[in-house]
Amino acid sequence: MTGQIFRTTANVCGTFCLALAIAMLLPMAIDLHDGNPDWQVFLNSSLFISLISALAIVATRGTIAPFSLRLGFLMINCLWLSTSVVAAIPYLMSSLGMSLADAVFEAVSGLTTTGSTVLTGLDLMPRGLLVWRSLTQWIGGFGIIAMGMLLLPFLRVGGMQIYRMESSTKGESPTARFREFAMALVGIYVTFTLACAVCYLIAGMSVFDAVNHAMTTLSTGGFSTHDRSLGYFGEPMLAVAIVFMLAGALPFIALVRALVLRDARRALEPQIPVLLGILVVLSALVATGLLIGGEGPPSWVMLHATFNIVSVVTTTGYVSADYMTWGTHAVGLFMLATFLGGCAGSTSGGLKTYRLVVMYQTMRSALRGLVFPNGLFVVRYGGEIVPPESIRSITVFIGAFFAALVSIAALLALMGLDYVTAFSGALTALTNTGPGLGEVIGPADNFASLPDAAKWLLSVAMLLGRLEILTVLVVLSPVFWRR
Amino acid sequence: MTGQIFRTTANVCGTFCLALAIAMLLPMAIDLHDGNPDWQVFLNSSLFISLISALAIVATRGTIAPFSLRLGFLMINCLWLSTSVVAAIPYLMSSLGMSLADAVFEAVSGLTTTGSTVLTGLDLMPRGLLVWRSLTQWIGGFGIIAMGMLLLPFLRVGGMQIYRMESSTKGESPTARFREFAMALVGIYVTFTLACAVCYLIAGMSVFDAVNHAMTTLSTGGFSTHDRSLGYFGEPMLAVAIVFMLAGALPFIALVRALVLRDARRALEPQIPVLLGILVVLSALVATGLLIGGEGPPSWVMLHATFNIVSVVTTTGYVSADYMTWGTHAVGLFMLATFLGGCAGSTSGGLKTYRLVVMYQTMRSALRGLVFPNGLFVVRYGGEIVPPESIRSITVFIGAFFAALVSIAALLALMGLDYVTAFSGALTALTNTGPGLGEVIGPADNFASLPDAAKWLLSVAMLLGRLEILTVLVVLSPVFWRR
Repeated sequence: MTGQIFRTTANVCGTFCLALAIAMLLPMAIDLHDGNPDWQVFLNSSLFISLISALAIVATRGTIAPFSLRLGFLMINCLWLSTSVVAAIPYLMSSLGMSLADAVFEAVSGLTTTGSTVLTGLDLMPRGLLVWRSLTQWIGGFGIIAMGMLLLPFLRVGGMQIYRMESSTKGESPTARFREFAMALVGIYVTFTLACAVCYLIAGMSVFDAVNHAMTTLSTGGFSTHDRSLGYFGEPMLAVAIVFMLAGALPFIALVRALVLRDARRALEPQIPVLLGILVVLSALVATGLLIGGEGPPSWVMLHATFNIVSVVTTTGYVSADYMTWGTHAVGLFMLATFLGGCAGSTSGGLKTYRLVVMYQTMRSALRGLVFPNGLFVVRYGGEIVPPESIRSITVFIGAFFAALVSIAALLALMGLDYVTAFSGALTALTNTGPGLGEVIGPADNFASLPDAAKWLLSVAMLLGRLEILTVLVVLSPVFWRR
Repeated sequence: MTGQIFRTTANVCGTFCLALAIAMLLPMAIDLHDGNPDWQVFLNSSLFISLISALAIVATRGTIAPFSLRLGFLMINCLWLSTSVVAAIPYLMSSLGMSLADAVFEAVSGLTTTGSTVLTGLDLMPRGLLVWRSLTQWIGGFGIIAMGMLLLPFLRVGGMQIYRMESSTKGESPTARFREFAMALVGIYVTFTLACAVCYLIAGMSVFDAVNHAMTTLSTGGFSTHDRSLGYFGEPMLAVAIVFMLAGALPFIALVRALVLRDARRALEPQIPVLLGILVVLSALVATGLLIGGEGPPSWVMLHATFNIVSVVTTTGYVSADYMTWGTHAVGLFMLATFLGGCAGSTSGGLKTYRLVVMYQTMRSALRGLVFPNGLFVVRYGGEIVPPESIRSITVFIGAFFAALVSIAALLALMGLDYVTAFSGALTALTNTGPGLGEVIGPADNFASLPDAAKWLLSVAMLLGRLEILTVLVVLSPVFWRR
């Protein structure tokens, strides 16, 4: 571990924090236009952060460490930590009078695209702050895809090795098309967001709401500009949201590769039909229960069941109705849904469809191996053999996920949270979903009433989940710091 | 798959059912002595089962298929299914008027040494039935150790490969000492049970209670002869129970090997100190919470915290107080405790300490591997290298465990159980512990009020947990039945 690595890390973090500071000028402009005194908060925050960031960049200029695993792991952790702190500053200085725990929770929930909130009264809140919330999710969503495309495959975390960049031409350097890939990602992400905003507009949202919700839909974040979330709007809006939450859960990395390498088949990953199948089955089960219970007319039931299931599985976290009142059968299905997550290579969290598919295939081949001990059973994904190393890193991820889930739930219970709140809180944070279950942090409630210690722990859990757990554990392990 | 395999399976199942039928003569004798008309129930059950079993044995005599993996898997499943059905017959025919679902639940809970019950009024119940309940646990406990010693290592399920029988003399056939191992196991199991009964007697139990509780303590089963479980007795009894629940959670298989191979070091497995460490930490955490809350004098707090934690971690399931009233911090710790389980090679269920140790080491070596991709990091257990095949079967087991847990919890919620009951019910059944959490199946309640469908599903879950999940899945997979 050399000083060069720290300096390079500080340099890159400074650059990203500076970018966030510049992004703060958008909410500032809106508050200024509205005549809201909070514009000064954004201006001051922006100037303060710019100054610090610029100092960091200048002090560490010219020292670029060659890429190494240590640099990669350290950088990812420092990047998400430093941007979380920076994103919390406007909340802390705003007229809302938020505590440090609340401000950091809201900032982390934004950047990790979780969407849990400690704020109420969104409908009457200064518009600058609302835009800032949406913006953190949109930027965080982009960040997570970029990280999954450019860094995680090299760090071999969580099975993301499948997305190791390859070129169409043999002999070309693997990073030769780095810039091309990055530009294609920006293009796709912006195009999808604009398309989503236009559809919301056509369906009847105001421009402000449409832009905000487009940013938090595509990033499967789930922050809304209304306390009732998407339940505030009419039913056409739910249909639009279903389509674009699904778009946000698609494997963007595969889309980028298909575009850059001009090979459409690369976009059709096997995880896409599996995800759709899961969504159809879960929605149908929830809807059937509601129909049997006579909870509403079939069209209402089908739309709301589908909307909320898609919202939870894609880890967006919008809510159109309080599904805690839909009966215990629905609660069980929503608990199950919270684990799954969308496609790997997207903005969504959770276990992710790709890993579910590989785990299912691994289990199948393990069962075959038990019957035929001398047979050789390979695990395939879309016709290609998954290397044992990828399977190992996926099973280790899943083990780490459940160990983290149980430990965090137990710690939350130690802090005085009831069983349902502790378990569903740990789960929703680790999977970056948003709403929990029960009467405290359920779909109709929010995280404001939790003790500060629980908010800090959940902030850590959201970061753990977003960074695929092992990325964080590596940096916390003594071996990482050994020379 | 040949007919020979089915005939051999039927032959072995018949033999075991016949043994159970003979065991029924003990409760019969007690009811006869008490002048309770239920003695006829046991006599009739015994005669009926003996007849059927004898027919099965005679019809399939002389056909012994050579040992094969298919035979092993099929036999284990059929053995536990047929003995569960047989063990349910006395309940079904007794004066209690139990439904089929209740009778099977109680029988499965006995044989799997889970200890969940649907019965109340134990204190006034015919003594024959009480003995039958204890006896099923004692027999089931022996069965699980024997299976772990003689069958599972060859079937390579759940990492039990470490217990593959080896002889001290090279060149000797691996099954040469089969008989010697089996006799040593009987010796140790009976000696421990007798020692436990004597200690209970000295501490003040009646002979009847002492024998019953000795059988359910050593098997980490947890059935009691009183509704208040061990809470009915004084504090000295709790101390005795702590010692022998711990004994029941020791790796009997390692003890047997140490005895047969005359090598004491084999008994000192690394999982033993780890288990003790876990128990000390969890008990101390629970006790500290109770002391801060001022729930009782320090001596009371320490004894009851330790007793209930040891009971849950060893998956015995005795209860001395309603720990649901000890505050949410205790509930979280008891949830965590329910996952763990005692040592592999014992009568206890859950994830088991050996697997926790190997998973921890695997995670550690995975983290090292992420930092040093070209390094070779082996996983060690007690100085010896754990082969990759064992690690794979442990990770597959843990993946299957959590997949089963989440699916069963979701199914229970679909049946109308609340979140806490559904999740803790699935967990306590899969880990063969006993009490759940919450107001329905918590430590002060029992499983009687659940719907029949839930009782059936929980019976399946108990068997799944007891047979290490994959043993059941193998037989349910199509590849098993392919020629």
